[in-house]
Amino acid sequence: MADDLASSTSHTLVLLPSGRRGAVAHGANLLDAARALGVELESICGGRQTCGKCQVSVEVGTYPKHGITSADDHLAPVGAVERDYCREHDIRGRRLACAAEVVGDVLILVPEESQARKQVIAKAATERAIEVDPAVRAVYVEVEPADLGSGGGDWERLQAALQGQWQLRHLRIDPFALRQLQPALVAGKHAVTVSVWQGREVLRIQPGYAEGACGLAIDVGTTTVVAHLCDLRTGAVLATEATMNPQVRYGEDLMSRVSYAMTEAQGVERLHRAIIRVLNDLAEGAVAAAGRTLEDVMDAVVVGNPIMHHLVLGLDPSGLGAAPFALALSAAADTKARDLGLKLNSAAYVHTLPCIAGHVGADHMAVLLAEAPHTSDPISLVVDVGTNAEISVGNRHGLACASSPTGPAFEGAQITHGQRAAPGAVERVRLDPATWEPRVQVIGHEGWIGADTSRPLPPAARATGICGSGIIEAVAEMFLAGVIDSGGRFADDAAGRSSRVRREGRGAAYVLIEATDSATGHPIVVTQNDVRAIQLAKAALYTGAKLLLHHRGQPKVDRIVLAGAFGSYISPRHAMVLGLIPDAPLERVVAVGNAAGDGARLALLNLGQRAEAARLAEWVDHVQIATDPSFQNEFVAAMGLPHATDAFPHLADFLPTSSRPSERPSQRRRLGAELSRKE
Amino acid sequence: MADDLASSTSHTLVLLPSGRRGAVAHGANLLDAARALGVELESICGGRQTCGKCQVSVEVGTYPKHGITSADDHLAPVGAVERDYCREHDIRGRRLACAAEVVGDVLILVPEESQARKQVIAKAATERAIEVDPAVRAVYVEVEPADLGSGGGDWERLQAALQGQWQLRHLRIDPFALRQLQPALVAGKHAVTVSVWQGREVLRIQPGYAEGACGLAIDVGTTTVVAHLCDLRTGAVLATEATMNPQVRYGEDLMSRVSYAMTEAQGVERLHRAIIRVLNDLAEGAVAAAGRTLEDVMDAVVVGNPIMHHLVLGLDPSGLGAAPFALALSAAADTKARDLGLKLNSAAYVHTLPCIAGHVGADHMAVLLAEAPHTSDPISLVVDVGTNAEISVGNRHGLACASSPTGPAFEGAQITHGQRAAPGAVERVRLDPATWEPRVQVIGHEGWIGADTSRPLPPAARATGICGSGIIEAVAEMFLAGVIDSGGRFADDAAGRSSRVRREGRGAAYVLIEATDSATGHPIVVTQNDVRAIQLAKAALYTGAKLLLHHRGQPKVDRIVLAGAFGSYISPRHAMVLGLIPDAPLERVVAVGNAAGDGARLALLNLGQRAEAARLAEWVDHVQIATDPSFQNEFVAAMGLPHATDAFPHLADFLPTSSRPSERPSQRRRLGAELSRKE
Repeated sequence: MADDLASSTSHTLVLLPSGRRGAVAHGANLLDAARALGVELESICGGRQTCGKCQVSVEVGTYPKHGITSADDHLAPVGAVERDYCREHDIRGRRLACAAEVVGDVLILVPEESQARKQVIAKAATERAIEVDPAVRAVYVEVEPADLGSGGGDWERLQAALQGQWQLRHLRIDPFALRQLQPALVAGKHAVTVSVWQGREVLRIQPGYAEGACGLAIDVGTTTVVAHLCDLRTGAVLATEATMNPQVRYGEDLMSRVSYAMTEAQGVERLHRAIIRVLNDLAEGAVAAAGRTLEDVMDAVVVGNPIMHHLVLGLDPSGLGAAPFALALSAAADTKARDLGLKLNSAAYVHTLPCIAGHVGADHMAVLLAEAPHTSDPISLVVDVGTNAEISVGNRHGLACASSPTGPAFEGAQITHGQRAAPGAVERVRLDPATWEPRVQVIGHEGWIGADTSRPLPPAARATGICGSGIIEAVAEMFLAGVIDSGGRFADDAAGRSSRVRREGRGAAYVLIEATDSATGHPIVVTQNDVRAIQLAKAALYTGAKLLLHHRGQPKVDRIVLAGAFGSYISPRHAMVLGLIPDAPLERVVAVGNAAGDGARLALLNLGQRAEAARLAEWVDHVQIATDPSFQNEFVAAMGLPHATDAFPHLADFLPTSSRPSERPSQRRRLGAELSRKE
Repeated sequence: MADDLASSTSHTLVLLPSGRRGAVAHGANLLDAARALGVELESICGGRQTCGKCQVSVEVGTYPKHGITSADDHLAPVGAVERDYCREHDIRGRRLACAAEVVGDVLILVPEESQARKQVIAKAATERAIEVDPAVRAVYVEVEPADLGSGGGDWERLQAALQGQWQLRHLRIDPFALRQLQPALVAGKHAVTVSVWQGREVLRIQPGYAEGACGLAIDVGTTTVVAHLCDLRTGAVLATEATMNPQVRYGEDLMSRVSYAMTEAQGVERLHRAIIRVLNDLAEGAVAAAGRTLEDVMDAVVVGNPIMHHLVLGLDPSGLGAAPFALALSAAADTKARDLGLKLNSAAYVHTLPCIAGHVGADHMAVLLAEAPHTSDPISLVVDVGTNAEISVGNRHGLACASSPTGPAFEGAQITHGQRAAPGAVERVRLDPATWEPRVQVIGHEGWIGADTSRPLPPAARATGICGSGIIEAVAEMFLAGVIDSGGRFADDAAGRSSRVRREGRGAAYVLIEATDSATGHPIVVTQNDVRAIQLAKAALYTGAKLLLHHRGQPKVDRIVLAGAFGSYISPRHAMVLGLIPDAPLERVVAVGNAAGDGARLALLNLGQRAEAARLAEWVDHVQIATDPSFQNEFVAAMGLPHATDAFPHLADFLPTSSRPSERPSQRRRLGAELSRKE
C-alpha cells in the first residue's frame, strides 16, 4: 500500500484486471514490479525493449478507489530505445513495461494480449433444447414490377407482396432497410428476401433468396462480458467470445462505477461508451470466428445487473447507488442497435430483458428463464453470486426474489490475498485434519500441490492469491480441521498446534502457501479478518434464502441452483459446511455455470421467452430483505458456522454434533477424508 | 462556350449558383473573368489579395453536364501573397478569386457571402389561419417518487402519471429521452414536462414546467431550400431561412442529379449528405435568429419533388430517371431526424408528406394542402412550375393531377441569355407597339429602364441576363407588338422595321439590352430559338391543363392558382397572352408564392392535415398525360400563340381576332397600352 511518509521512495502500483496492488520502490522497473505483485506479463525479448509483448496502458488521472490520489509522475519519460520502438510500431499510446520506471502512484491496465496467463473465463454456451422462434424471420417474396399506370412506390408494392404471400400486415420499415429496397429489387429481378422483426418491421432487404441471419446473446457481467453468436434459423451457437469488462478501469466493483458516473464529468457517457466498444469488439470477433458479417447480425439480447443494464442503455445508474434504488426503466426494451452505437446490422434491435428491482436485474431474469423454477413443483432456490447475491425461491405457485448484500468477498475482494479466478489463484483447498497441512489446486496448473510435491515448484504452480471458491474451501476446511471454531475464531491453541498458524497484526492467520512456494515471494494467508468477511457474506446469503423461504411459507428447499462463474467453481459440500446455502440433499445442489448467458440465448431464439420474462417481471414477488424486521436477528444467528443438525440434517452424517467442533476432531477428520475421496 | 480547337488558349468557366458560363482566355484573372460573365464578386481590397471577400470554391473533377470534361489544370497554383493570406486566415480550402488564374476548364462555386449581389429568394411564410394541433404536445406531470416497496422504474411511474393525469396510454419512449428521465425527475423534484409525439411516444423530458417547443417546415426545391421555424404551441413563424440547394454543384437540373446518383460512386450518399448539411445549416440559422436551440426543435415536415424527397431520405432516385418512374416510397413517412443525420432534438421525427406519383411529389401535395382545391366547388387549376410543371385540376368532387414535361425553359435554362431570378436578371419587359423599343425592370434595381433613362446606367441597372418571368413577358410583348407572329416566327419585315431585330446565326434575334447597357458588355437578346423553347414549354403546360380538364369532364376552369417562386413573379396577363394557361377571368388568376412551404407549415402545425394528405394521396387521380393518345395532337395545336377567341374569350377584348396578329397592329397596341396602365 502507498506509504505516505515515504512517498519519495515508494509508490502504489495497481494492476488491472487482476486487481493486484502493492508498494514498489521509486524507479522500479514496471515489468519486474508487476511480476513481484504476481502479475506475469508476456515477454519474449527478456526486457530488451524489442519484442513489444509487455505493452501496458497507463491510466492517467486520480483513482481514489484504487488508492491513487495524485495525477503526477506515474512513469519516467520514454527513453531512446522505447521511442525507437514506438516509431517503428504502432503501440497506440501504450508503454513497454520492460522500459518503464515507476516514479509515482500508478494504475496500469494490462491488456489481454500482454497477460502471460490469460484470464480464465468459465462461461461457454451450454447445449440445450431451445424451440427456435426468433424475433427476426426471413421471408422470400416476389414483388410486382412497377408500371406506369400503377400507383404507389416499391415499398407499397412490397407491402402488398408480404401481405399476399405471407399474411404480414401493417408493416413498417426501417429507414435504412428502405434504402436497400430498390437496388435489391433490381438485383433480384423483383424477388427479395425480407427480414421481418416481430411481424411488425422490415429490417433488411436482400436480392433473391438469402439466408444467414444471426443474433447475439450477451451477458454483461461486472467483470466479464460474454457474447454468443447464434444462427437465428437453426439456433446453433456459431461462436462464443468473452472478454474483460473494460469499465474495471473506472472501478472494480459496481458501486465504484456508480460513484464514477455520479462524480466525473461525462462519467455515464464514458462508462456507456466503454461497454459499447467492448460489445462491438466481441461482435466483430464472433462474426469473424463464424465467417459471418456484422450486417448479418439482425438481433441481440443483452442481460446484466441493473447497473450494467443501465450503462449499456446509456442510462445514468446514479439512482441505483442509494435507497430507494430507483431503476430508470424496469420493463424490457427494444432499442435500435445504432442508437446505442452498436455496429450490427444498421436496422437491428437490441432487446434488454426486464429488471425485477433495483438490485435484481435482467441477468437474474435470464437465470430464471434458463432454470425455470416457476414451471415445476419442487421448491427451488436459485442463487447467482456476484458482488451481491440475487436469490429466488419458489415453484410454479409463486416465486419470491431478493438481493442479498453479500459484498464482494466471494469474488476475492476484501480478502487479504483475494483475487479473481485467474491463473495463479488458489481455487481448491484441503486441510489434513490431523496435521493441518494444506493441499491446494492453483488455476493454470494441473493436480494438487501439497507438502509431498517436489520442489522448487514450477512457475504455474506458484500461487498469486486466493479466488472466491478457494477462500470458501479454505475457511470450510479450517473449520472442519478445527483451526477455527463455529464462531469463526481461531482456536486458542491453534498457533501451538501447527506452525501454519501465526500471529498477523491484531489476529491470527493461517498460512496456506509459504513464501518459498508463492509467486510473489510472500506467504499467502487466510487471516481472522478474512474469516470474518466470509462469515458476513455467507450470513447475508443464507439469511436472504431463509427469509425468502419464510416468505413463501416453505420450511425447506428441494433443489438448489448455483448460477454464474462462481457457482460453477464452488464446491457444494463446502458451501454447505460453511452454511452458505440452506440444507439440501447434496445431489440436489447443481452448479449451472453461466445461466444468465443461457437465458439471454433463450430470449434471443424464442420470442415466447421474452413474453415469459415480461410476465415473470410482474409475477415474481420482490422482497426487500434488508428492511425485513427479522433480518438483523437472522443475520446475526447465521454468522456462526453450522453446528445444529436440525438446520442441516443432510450434513448430520459428517458434521460435529456439538456446538464446538474443535471438541470432536475425529468427526471433522472423517468429513475431511470423505470430501477428499470424492475429488 | 468551350472552344475545343483553341483549348490551349481558351477555357470554359462555369460559375454556380448563377449558372453563368463562357469561354475565358488562358491565364485570365478569375475575378475579372467572373465579372465579364455577369457574376459580381465581393471585393473590398480591389484585387490586392488582402480582404478575402472574393473567396470561391473550386470544384475538382469532371462535370460533363457543365461542359467540363477534363479534371486537369483548373487554376494556376497558389502564389506567395495568397499563401500568406491563407496562412493567417482559415479560408477552408477556398481560393481568392482575385489571385487565381484560369488555366483550364473550371467549375467555380461562389458562396453566398462572396456574391456581391445576393440571390433573391421570393419565399417567405405567408400569414394564414392554421388551427394549431401539432404532432408534438408538451404536458406537465407530477410523478410519484420511487420508494423501496414500489415496483417498476421511473419510466413505469411516469407512464402511470401520464395515464392518470393526461389519459395517455401505451406510450413508448425514445431511448435518448429515457436518458433525460432520472436527471429531470431529480432537478424538477418529481415534476417534469414531457413532449409527446402523436400521443404515442415520449420524445423529451424536461424538469419542472417548460415550454418553447418548435418545429421546422422545410421546402426542398431543386434550386432553393426554405425553412420556416414555427412555435408548436402558438403556430407563429419565428424565423425563415433560405439558401441555395448545394446539390447544384452535382447538376443544375434534376435529371443531372439523378444521373450523378446513378453513375458516381456513392453518388446518392453525397447528394443526401449535401442536402442534409444544408438543412442543418438552415436549422441552426433559424434557431439562432429566433433565440431558440436545436434541442427545442421537436418536429419537422419536409416536402420536395420526388427526387428531392428521395435524396433527403437517402433513397436512390435512379428509378425516377426513366419509365416507369418508380418511387421507392410513396406514402408519408416519419423518420427519426438523427437517422437522417439531422441535428434537431435527438428524438425528433421528420415527417415527409406522401408523393402522388414519380413526377408529382410531396411538394405538390403540400401545394394542394395549402390551396385546398379539393374542399370547394369551383374548378381549380393549380400549377406549380419548376423544371417540370405539376398540375392539378378539379374540385371537391374529384381532383386529377399530372406532371407536364415543360423542361427548364421557364427557369431561364435553354434560353440564350437565360438565368435564375437573381440580381441583374431582366424580370419585366414592355415593348412599345409602334417603335418596338423596350422598357425593362432588372432585379436589384428600382423602376423601369427605357430608352429615355439617363445613361450611363448605374451598375445595378445593368442586366446580366433574363429570368423566367422576363422571358415570358418578352415573348408575349414581342407577339403583341408584332415582332413575332402567332406561329412564333419573326415577322418577315421585322429587321427592316427596327434596328432592335438583327440576324443572329441561323435566325433572327430581338435585342432587349444593348451591349452598352448590359453588365457583360454583350447585347442581351431573345432569339428565334428562345421563342421556340418558350413555345415548347408553354405548349406542354397548356396541354397538361387541357387534358386534365378533359379528364375531369370540365370545359373550363373557374380559378387558376400559380404556385412557386415562378408563379409569384409571372404576370398572369402575359401568361394568358402566351397561352401558358387556359382562359379564365384575369381576376381569378392568383399567384400564391411558396405554397409548398405553406403546405409544409400546415402539416407541421396540424396533424389533421397529415391525415388529409394521406387521404388525398389515395383520392387524387394521377393521369399519365405523356402517354395519352391525344397528347401529341394537343401539344402541336398548343404550340401557336393564342388567336382564337373561342379558346380564350377573356382575351377577346384585347387580342387580335384574326389568325395573323401582325395584321391588326392597332389592337395589339391597345392591349400593350392597357397592360402598361395596370403597372
